[in-house]
Amino acid sequence: VPGTFGVDNLPYGVFTPGDGRPRVGVRIGDTVLDLHAALGDEVFAEPTLNAFMAQGPASWQQARERVTALLGEKSSQVGGAAHRHNLGDVSLALPFAVADYVDFYSSRQHAENVGRIFRPDGDALMPNWLHLPIGYHGRAGTVVVSGTPVGRPSGQRREPGSESPVFGPSTRLDIEAEVGFVVGVPSPLGRPIPAADFDKHVFGVALVNDWSARDIQAWEYVPLGPFLGKSFATSISAWVTPLAALRHARVPPPVQEPEPLPYLRSDEDFGLDIEIEVSLNGHVVSRPPFRDMYWSPAQQLAHMTVNGASARTGDLYASGTVSGTVRGEFGSFLEMSWGGRDPLSLPGGETRTFLRDGDTVTLTASARGSGGARVALGEVTGTIMPAVNQA
Amino acid sequence: VPGTFGVDNLPYGVFTPGDGRPRVGVRIGDTVLDLHAALGDEVFAEPTLNAFMAQGPASWQQARERVTALLGEKSSQVGGAAHRHNLGDVSLALPFAVADYVDFYSSRQHAENVGRIFRPDGDALMPNWLHLPIGYHGRAGTVVVSGTPVGRPSGQRREPGSESPVFGPSTRLDIEAEVGFVVGVPSPLGRPIPAADFDKHVFGVALVNDWSARDIQAWEYVPLGPFLGKSFATSISAWVTPLAALRHARVPPPVQEPEPLPYLRSDEDFGLDIEIEVSLNGHVVSRPPFRDMYWSPAQQLAHMTVNGASARTGDLYASGTVSGTVRGEFGSFLEMSWGGRDPLSLPGGETRTFLRDGDTVTLTASARGSGGARVALGEVTGTIMPAVNQA
Repeated sequence: VPGTFGVDNLPYGVFTPGDGRPRVGVRIGDTVLDLHAALGDEVFAEPTLNAFMAQGPASWQQARERVTALLGEKSSQVGGAAHRHNLGDVSLALPFAVADYVDFYSSRQHAENVGRIFRPDGDALMPNWLHLPIGYHGRAGTVVVSGTPVGRPSGQRREPGSESPVFGPSTRLDIEAEVGFVVGVPSPLGRPIPAADFDKHVFGVALVNDWSARDIQAWEYVPLGPFLGKSFATSISAWVTPLAALRHARVPPPVQEPEPLPYLRSDEDFGLDIEIEVSLNGHVVSRPPFRDMYWSPAQQLAHMTVNGASARTGDLYASGTVSGTVRGEFGSFLEMSWGGRDPLSLPGGETRTFLRDGDTVTLTASARGSGGARVALGEVTGTIMPAVNQA
Repeated sequence: VPGTFGVDNLPYGVFTPGDGRPRVGVRIGDTVLDLHAALGDEVFAEPTLNAFMAQGPASWQQARERVTALLGEKSSQVGGAAHRHNLGDVSLALPFAVADYVDFYSSRQHAENVGRIFRPDGDALMPNWLHLPIGYHGRAGTVVVSGTPVGRPSGQRREPGSESPVFGPSTRLDIEAEVGFVVGVPSPLGRPIPAADFDKHVFGVALVNDWSARDIQAWEYVPLGPFLGKSFATSISAWVTPLAALRHARVPPPVQEPEPLPYLRSDEDFGLDIEIEVSLNGHVVSRPPFRDMYWSPAQQLAHMTVNGASARTGDLYASGTVSGTVRGEFGSFLEMSWGGRDPLSLPGGETRTFLRDGDTVTLTASARGSGGARVALGEVTGTIMPAVNQA
């Protein structure tokens, strides 16, 4: 069920009108409302959401109420029409300056799939997986907005049976369909954020495609984790959906057994009913269900700061690949093609294991809204460009 | 041999006089020269080095020449005296806004030590280690300036023989003595930086102590690498030594066998003769030699961007723990105590495996200068504070 960008949604982004500078806007249908022009608040004249996000929940609520009121006005300037631009007339920028980028690994199904693909005779899960949300830092500087072309990365890979690596364009270029959480209110060094304080710090949600070169990753990742296999690009949606728009999407999280350590428990904890669609060249290939994620975003935030690490405005942390129990619900081509051994069939007789140059991958998503309605998340799309660096 | 902060050194930092705002200065002896006041350039009125570093090598050289000329003047305001503050009268800030932080693992001796400690029956080096500079992204938001107290992190660890983890303050808190490189001139997405262009992009060098909680790290790091075991704090020196001050420190790099892939080769490549001293509570416990590092900073930069990743002004990448061949040259307590099995003896009969609350670790370093002189790097020091988060 596709969602809508109605008055119960109101995601934030940064847009540039043809003649102007980048500024903050709210999406309504296929238009964007110029918030600085409509509300007269200087925080919306900024070229990123960061200053607004740093103001905290009271300001977030007030802005949402003012926009809602404006849209309901019956004056001559109906619904802020004077300050609305058609999406086709503006360009969309990265909505916030990314501080630190962390990528988790919180879908049990995804972790088990990866374990089965790479270690068919071992345990599907590592011993630590059920005790903590595994995660690592990614490259913040290469987080790009939806629509940015993605160059196929070159790098070292080792072919099966060979001892030495070769250099060249990745031959196993993949996606990771994820949901990202954006920190608004920072926390100081030495002050962990309790899981229950999740919504005092996190402003909203963006869709994330964490592009991954599986061959580069496989060769480099022992013992310090993924590096160049991931750092060439991470695409995020141009729109950040505020948590307030997702209040109807809260669902009970999965039962966790063994029970997590106390710092990972909270009565306020929640899952989110978000349905993702993965499209390859316009054809839907998968529908990963976010509601089944094992570790919640509140637990991830608590874990990320429990050692005293500070959080900053603009920190982005992503869920990790979202995968369900069957092929039609997997969030990566690694899983959909089961390690490249079982290609996907596409309309027109084509097949795919990993991505080819020219392929376009688009993630769309919607969350449960009020009544039967669904709230749309901003899409994230990217097209693969040929490698520039061949040797 | 300790180095000096003479006229052939001139490292940059950010200082705050008692009555003022943070601004850029150059260290001369035990004074700091206010560059905005002395040179009248607005770029030095900034609270970080980033704007100046982004200007590139021609500006860096010009500023250095102007400071050198000023210090040689015989006028009534000898050597810029009117614009110099005693170090005791100012506070020192983080010298640059850290964009992305990458930590490498480029000392062969360190990698082999770690291999022997944790895998006594296996190969000391992983199969990939001799083919690429292994590295990973760390947390940029918790890079702090020298002198910042370091809270002992709490987190999950698993005791030997136990299946489940416990939570509590780290019992294996360690250091990593490293040299960090600071990017000035950015590079765009999709345009790898050749190894030969190292000094067109890198502005200078900072000393780095990458504090590490070995027990947290050991439990969490499979399969995505270190996370909370490192992210609580990384201390850097208040002074960034420009590459120009290190021109006499260039030494031939070690022979690399097998020969690296072409993108990692360069006639311009270099090692750096930097000697580090690690002091615990005022007592020197180790002298790690940077000149023996296997992978050079030029190779690290080429590797970090070969997949098309952009570099940003303020990117910090550190060498990884610097270790020589004997215990007196190791850059971590993990190695100095050989996994905690062989405590160090300290003056007064004390011993140490890992750090105790109240311990102060100070790294100092000097590099070969002109003639027999040595150029001092800024020190990096930190004192361990008790954990705040006990349960």
